[in-house]
Amino acid sequence: MTRRLHVGLVQLAMAPDKATNVARACAEIGAAASRGATLICLPELFAGPYFCQTEDVANFDLAEPIPGPTFDAVAAAARAAGVTVVASLFERRAAGVYHNTSVTLGPDGALLGTYRKMHVPDDPLFLEKFYFTPGDLGFVAHATPTAVVGSLVCWDQWYPEAARLTSLRGAEVLCYPTAIGWQPYEKAEWGAAQLDAWRTVQRGHAIANGVFVAAVNRVGHEGPAGAGIDFWGHSFVADPFGVVLAEAGEGEETLVVELDLDRIEQVRRWWPFLRDRRVDAYEGLTRRLLDS
Amino acid sequence: MTRRLHVGLVQLAMAPDKATNVARACAEIGAAASRGATLICLPELFAGPYFCQTEDVANFDLAEPIPGPTFDAVAAAARAAGVTVVASLFERRAAGVYHNTSVTLGPDGALLGTYRKMHVPDDPLFLEKFYFTPGDLGFVAHATPTAVVGSLVCWDQWYPEAARLTSLRGAEVLCYPTAIGWQPYEKAEWGAAQLDAWRTVQRGHAIANGVFVAAVNRVGHEGPAGAGIDFWGHSFVADPFGVVLAEAGEGEETLVVELDLDRIEQVRRWWPFLRDRRVDAYEGLTRRLLDS
Repeated sequence: MTRRLHVGLVQLAMAPDKATNVARACAEIGAAASRGATLICLPELFAGPYFCQTEDVANFDLAEPIPGPTFDAVAAAARAAGVTVVASLFERRAAGVYHNTSVTLGPDGALLGTYRKMHVPDDPLFLEKFYFTPGDLGFVAHATPTAVVGSLVCWDQWYPEAARLTSLRGAEVLCYPTAIGWQPYEKAEWGAAQLDAWRTVQRGHAIANGVFVAAVNRVGHEGPAGAGIDFWGHSFVADPFGVVLAEAGEGEETLVVELDLDRIEQVRRWWPFLRDRRVDAYEGLTRRLLDS
Repeated sequence: MTRRLHVGLVQLAMAPDKATNVARACAEIGAAASRGATLICLPELFAGPYFCQTEDVANFDLAEPIPGPTFDAVAAAARAAGVTVVASLFERRAAGVYHNTSVTLGPDGALLGTYRKMHVPDDPLFLEKFYFTPGDLGFVAHATPTAVVGSLVCWDQWYPEAARLTSLRGAEVLCYPTAIGWQPYEKAEWGAAQLDAWRTVQRGHAIANGVFVAAVNRVGHEGPAGAGIDFWGHSFVADPFGVVLAEAGEGEETLVVELDLDRIEQVRRWWPFLRDRRVDAYEGLTRRLLDS
């Protein structure tokens, strides 16, 4: 039996207010579904501007419990469209414990799985360690009606360990809600290389694991003119051999891309990397450095 | 202090007889050194044709102890040129225990380090599990006069674990002696994607680890016309951001490429992936699958 699905990547710019962003994202879920998508992924923290450019305790007011209002709105959109949705939320778990969390919602709106961002960055304008407690659910994959889906989030993209562990859990498609962009002062010199590195390392995950990779970024400039972040878009899907099946530009755009899941078995038969992993010799991966 | 070196990638086609191949490789070591290279890498099993296309016990006669005649010849060439050489040898360790081994030889011809190929393939025309006992030295890096060098070998290229562990050992440059090519029947349909996947996954290692990667392949057709392997060349060097600094074509060619080792510190400061590894959550990497 041929197993195929269409994945929808919703690349959006964010408005200042949550209601607008949630409504637009839900509308795009419906639109992507009408184009045949059965698995739809939203950008990282799609409910608002990327607030991690500064450290401000007032921003914790943006967090919501799961379930909560934004979760409920996305669940209703998933149910209305009859599709699976991967949505990235700012989770209020308890007073003082907030997470950057990705939820996978089924076509009936039910929660199929939760992932809390494991690798949390802290770099100029990406001050996430202030806001997000590191994930404590490990790396997970969830069965959905059309594929086994593993969600990871943004900074996780740079970690082969994250892609590997999620794939070992059985993921067929890795979905990465993302908020990555250029800082204006560096764009001219380093922008092209940064974008290419981001795309390349994720294509590498697809190849090393024999899985599909879908990265869904936001677009638009956020912050003061000449400063802030230019979110670079370029959401893309790579097949299990790292071939880019589709890639968005730098404006709002929803990609709907067919995935042939049988390609996973085909690629892994011809390039059986998982067979030959030296699991007897990988213990050092649990160390920071091997310098002693 | 600026730390720079020139790396030499010796991309060769192999003759049927060992004496010719060893002499040509040694001559290229001298030639690359005369162009300024101080670290020179040879292709995988450069002493002969790629014998793993068939399973034949007579081929074990090709193996040599380390040190042995081929080792001695390369050591003499390294000493004569005053350079460090990474050389891939078919090692006879004991009766019935043979390895696919990479040695790092210093400018005085002394053995600086040994790596025995950890990931051993077994695919049509790459029947290495018949010949090579899996490596038992783990993943290693060796100080040389110009850089800390980690050698891995060919099939290791597909394993993020290998690149990561070698980098955690302190490697600044990952050298991959390689023998990879197309099987003629698949070249038209899959050839370009295979080459691109091979290049991409290794560029991903450079990015994920903030290290230089040098892959050194052989070229030429070996085997019957219309069958056998077309070794695809395309030896290349990537910088710590995955940028390809130089890439060879599909014929014999020696690349000499300047590496600015200070770029490692620069890239890792701006993209501090090693800082945020979740070493508390990687234990599953020592498992075959996480399916239970």
